Amino acid sequence: MDRALELARRGPAFGPNPRVGCVLLGAPDRGLTGPVDGDLRVLAEGWHEGAGTAHAEAAALASAFGAGVDVRGATAVVTLEPCNHTGRTGPCAQALLDAGIARVVVAVPDPNPQAAGGAEHLRTGGVDVAVGVGQAQGRALLQHWLAAVDRARPFVTLKLAVSIDGRIAAADGSSRWITSEVARQHAHGLRAEVDAIAVGTGTVAADDPSLTARNAAGGLTGHQPLRVVVGHREVPAGARLRGPGGELVHLRTHDVAAVLAALHEREVRHLLVEGGPMLATAFLRGGFVDELYTYVAPVLLGTGLTAVGDLGVGSIGEALRFVPREPVPLGPDVLIVSTPVRASRAPATTTEESR
Amino acid sequence: MDRALELARRGPAFGPNPRVGCVLLGAPDRGLTGPVDGDLRVLAEGWHEGAGTAHAEAAALASAFGAGVDVRGATAVVTLEPCNHTGRTGPCAQALLDAGIARVVVAVPDPNPQAAGGAEHLRTGGVDVAVGVGQAQGRALLQHWLAAVDRARPFVTLKLAVSIDGRIAAADGSSRWITSEVARQHAHGLRAEVDAIAVGTGTVAADDPSLTARNAAGGLTGHQPLRVVVGHREVPAGARLRGPGGELVHLRTHDVAAVLAALHEREVRHLLVEGGPMLATAFLRGGFVDELYTYVAPVLLGTGLTAVGDLGVGSIGEALRFVPREPVPLGPDVLIVSTPVRASRAPATTTEESR
Repeated sequence: MDRALELARRGPAFGPNPRVGCVLLGAPDRGLTGPVDGDLRVLAEGWHEGAGTAHAEAAALASAFGAGVDVRGATAVVTLEPCNHTGRTGPCAQALLDAGIARVVVAVPDPNPQAAGGAEHLRTGGVDVAVGVGQAQGRALLQHWLAAVDRARPFVTLKLAVSIDGRIAAADGSSRWITSEVARQHAHGLRAEVDAIAVGTGTVAADDPSLTARNAAGGLTGHQPLRVVVGHREVPAGARLRGPGGELVHLRTHDVAAVLAALHEREVRHLLVEGGPMLATAFLRGGFVDELYTYVAPVLLGTGLTAVGDLGVGSIGEALRFVPREPVPLGPDVLIVSTPVRASRAPATTTEESR
Repeated sequence: MDRALELARRGPAFGPNPRVGCVLLGAPDRGLTGPVDGDLRVLAEGWHEGAGTAHAEAAALASAFGAGVDVRGATAVVTLEPCNHTGRTGPCAQALLDAGIARVVVAVPDPNPQAAGGAEHLRTGGVDVAVGVGQAQGRALLQHWLAAVDRARPFVTLKLAVSIDGRIAAADGSSRWITSEVARQHAHGLRAEVDAIAVGTGTVAADDPSLTARNAAGGLTGHQPLRVVVGHREVPAGARLRGPGGELVHLRTHDVAAVLAALHEREVRHLLVEGGPMLATAFLRGGFVDELYTYVAPVLLGTGLTAVGDLGVGSIGEALRFVPREPVPLGPDVLIVSTPVRASRAPATTTEESR
């Protein structure tokens, strides 16, 4: 399963589909020269390379067939339950059955009602199926996708880049730059992993952002997230948002739920909210922030634009509190990644169910 | 010198005098059973335990005399240049001369005009003196004291305990607690190391702080810093500031330079400014903050009291910028210790001058 997870990570973090890896294992006398895993030998491997390409199981089977390897009676180790529906590609559960796979080991059950049922279909076909092996690591890898499927809306990361005194711009509105080059490059790495970036029309007017993912040299990275503008004001004709980068989507609403529904419809799984304060506040007040990326710069401004507006917090007991991961030093700045403290679904415990 | 610095650290971080350690080394056939350092043997050790007690050199000599050890011709390794003046105790340079010490090795020259000249006095007396050995470590140990002597005012640490959005209290003024117990206990450790803590009268009125240094069990630590209230309003009769803790000093002024002069007069070397925003802003605007301790809690408040007020920063280019040390995770919070970016004296390079 460790190898299958490693393969899964080769897939892109963005896109409508989950990252999945698959390893086919067979008896040592069956395979060719693959490495030995316990008593078994690796017959073939596969992973999902993004929407429209083969699923991991199909890729592994194709690799085996291509090499002339007999996979009948083999074990398939997959990081996510094989799908049971025909989408852009055929159902993987049936493909495994057809190939004569005898045993399937799965890390994470598929929560997608459209695609689930793969394990049951395999069992009905006489395949031995174990679900939950390495589930914690599998869930960690798929956290954004699982949450998006579970909530039927994109996973939302809110990014704030603040001075120690919580300002995102000086009194005259200037904000370039509060954080360091190192922190800004890190934020570009985050952009390159999400499906969409949202800003309010106020930020478009004030900052004329391009909302592109760029590499250290300043060039556009291969994947460019959807650029989402929220609000009623027009995006000016000459705006950088209309220049090279991801597709521009203008949602003329202030209703965050409507924004998320529209993006879910477009199969956006991971949305990065970059500001300004009005949009950030709307997402926070709606309880729609799943993760907070705060870049804190060792800078004091005293006055100027605050990172967030009125959150409806009257006294300290009503504060919005977050559970942080270990702080990450980025040059002079510190990145604090945290998740909200709230009555959320507890993560499923790792169980292994087999029959 | 490493051993001498280790001894120096046994002294208190607070108090008017520097922390100093001294090791007396002699030829192996001279000493008793002390450990061997290079070709030499440790004859005796001493360190300064605080105002009114013996200086490190005197303590080491007393230890040697008490044990009947002959120190004539010995080498004295001292972290700070031996003093040359008679204060609460006699001059150490003369004491070393009188004892027949042949060589003195010093880490940091004494910048105090009243006490300096010890090296020169020893040289005139025929002693071989080397200054600057381990100077970087010696200066690090004495950073607050050296800065205070250099500037003829206390070294100022400003402490801020803020939410991610730079607030120190919610809309209704409630502020207990934004930071975690771990962070607050850390801040008590800081209080236990400084000579004085300052707050404005606004903070006294709003929070009724006790400004004591307490241990994890809630008891008062041995050393209690001076409690300084700045401003014109009276400290109420029943205020916690009038309860158990350090001496209360009320400075009826808004002039920060006058505050620092009054505290320098009282031999305060390290002042901790704890708030509120008006006092913090006054210290920052005056350029009197030497070090910033920022405890950042993963909390959003949206509205409420800001950590600092108008700093006179109009645009991003005028921002007050700080150079941070490595961030320190404290439970869910992060401590960022930083020093201001400004035209400051470059730290003296480590040099060894000998004759």
